[in-house]
Amino acid sequence: MDEMIIYGKNSVIEALESGNREFNKILISNNSHSDTKIEQIKVLSKQRGIVFQFVAKEKLNLLVPEGRHQGVVAQIAPIKYVELEDFIEEYKGENAPVVILDGVEDSHNVGAIIRSCVCAGIKGIILPSRRGALVNSTVEKTSAGATSHISIIKTNSLVNAIQKLKENDWWVIASDHHAEQNHYEIDYTDMNFALIMGAEHAGISKSLLKLSDFKVKIPMLTKFNSLNVSNAAAIIMFEYVTQVAKKRENKLR
Amino acid sequence: MDEMIIYGKNSVIEALESGNREFNKILISNNSHSDTKIEQIKVLSKQRGIVFQFVAKEKLNLLVPEGRHQGVVAQIAPIKYVELEDFIEEYKGENAPVVILDGVEDSHNVGAIIRSCVCAGIKGIILPSRRGALVNSTVEKTSAGATSHISIIKTNSLVNAIQKLKENDWWVIASDHHAEQNHYEIDYTDMNFALIMGAEHAGISKSLLKLSDFKVKIPMLTKFNSLNVSNAAAIIMFEYVTQVAKKRENKLR
Repeated sequence: MDEMIIYGKNSVIEALESGNREFNKILISNNSHSDTKIEQIKVLSKQRGIVFQFVAKEKLNLLVPEGRHQGVVAQIAPIKYVELEDFIEEYKGENAPVVILDGVEDSHNVGAIIRSCVCAGIKGIILPSRRGALVNSTVEKTSAGATSHISIIKTNSLVNAIQKLKENDWWVIASDHHAEQNHYEIDYTDMNFALIMGAEHAGISKSLLKLSDFKVKIPMLTKFNSLNVSNAAAIIMFEYVTQVAKKRENKLR
Repeated sequence: MDEMIIYGKNSVIEALESGNREFNKILISNNSHSDTKIEQIKVLSKQRGIVFQFVAKEKLNLLVPEGRHQGVVAQIAPIKYVELEDFIEEYKGENAPVVILDGVEDSHNVGAIIRSCVCAGIKGIILPSRRGALVNSTVEKTSAGATSHISIIKTNSLVNAIQKLKENDWWVIASDHHAEQNHYEIDYTDMNFALIMGAEHAGISKSLLKLSDFKVKIPMLTKFNSLNVSNAAAIIMFEYVTQVAKKRENKLR
């Protein structure tokens, strides 16, 4: 089968627990001290009938540079990208917030954004097939296993994808530091939204900005206006989470 | 002089503009296409009387692995850490929010946190001399030059540092996912605060939790509870920014 690797204890445990990744084999360093996480990996592998094998640390070093594997590397099938049409069909009639990355090239940022997305209850993330990082081993690792808990949609045309979302009643929000409205001035709980985050330097393409229903900026308390894109994404997503949490509390009262 | 390097166009420009970093020399690749940023670096260097020199790209590759220098490497004096006593003295009588990192080891995270701190108007960041990353080239690069815009305090004892802050009327807030209170339930604008962020896996040490006046958690909309520490820090800091911005708007009305 077509194959990729994931590495690090937490990433492997997350992928095993999610149950929606096809494993080929798990390699465990025979020099590593066995700890509760390694034990957990063995137990989960046995439950799912996945082969694990002890190998010399040097073999793992060949697969993952700089020895960042923490003694565990899993050979798995590449992530299954979801078709946008299927995603829309799956969530018909319920709110399914989406994040769209327009040309975010740094794999660490893409991984961190996917991780925050899952924490924030975002249901799908849309990546362009060109102009941006797709899901590679670095993304998997930085996401801490979150790639297994969200629909990852790959598209040849972000314009088409956004138009399709709009036709299906998603509201499109662009994060743009030229915007007039602050990110906290929108009620995210009142709509099904798709949040576009732009490339680290270039920002969001004009063609996508034109399609947006709202443009929001994150206010700064200094002139140094240069948030990392994964931090900016987290700030907006968790404004949404805060609004949801506050609404729930009010209902409980 | 004792020396370190910073690299990348934006980092070098930020350091030149801030005016508080001592430069030895700037190396510019003679293979790189000159663009507005390279031109800006030349102009700023001339203004400040700093020598720049054109060298082969290969020479830069020896200084910065993986060719991430974007054609510019600057040799500068290491960052000047600020003494906590001097920091407290400098900000006597005004609010000066502080972020404290308890054992955050990943340099990318430390750099991204410093970057968000500056955007959020945080005045100081406290790093432990041991158990955590100090300011190295990766931190400088990931911070996008933000290290020149904030007081960076290094301490042998976070416990002592926190006690000193408390004696001087800072309120201590710990980010702890076991906390009962949500991060948005605190009024950050009403006090001078020091926010402690813990290590990626271990969280905040018990001795520091004990010293905290507030413990706050970031609510999640799923069971996947695993925010990256720099994203978690950004979410809490920008809750503070949002509160400040809302208060200012209300005053204007």
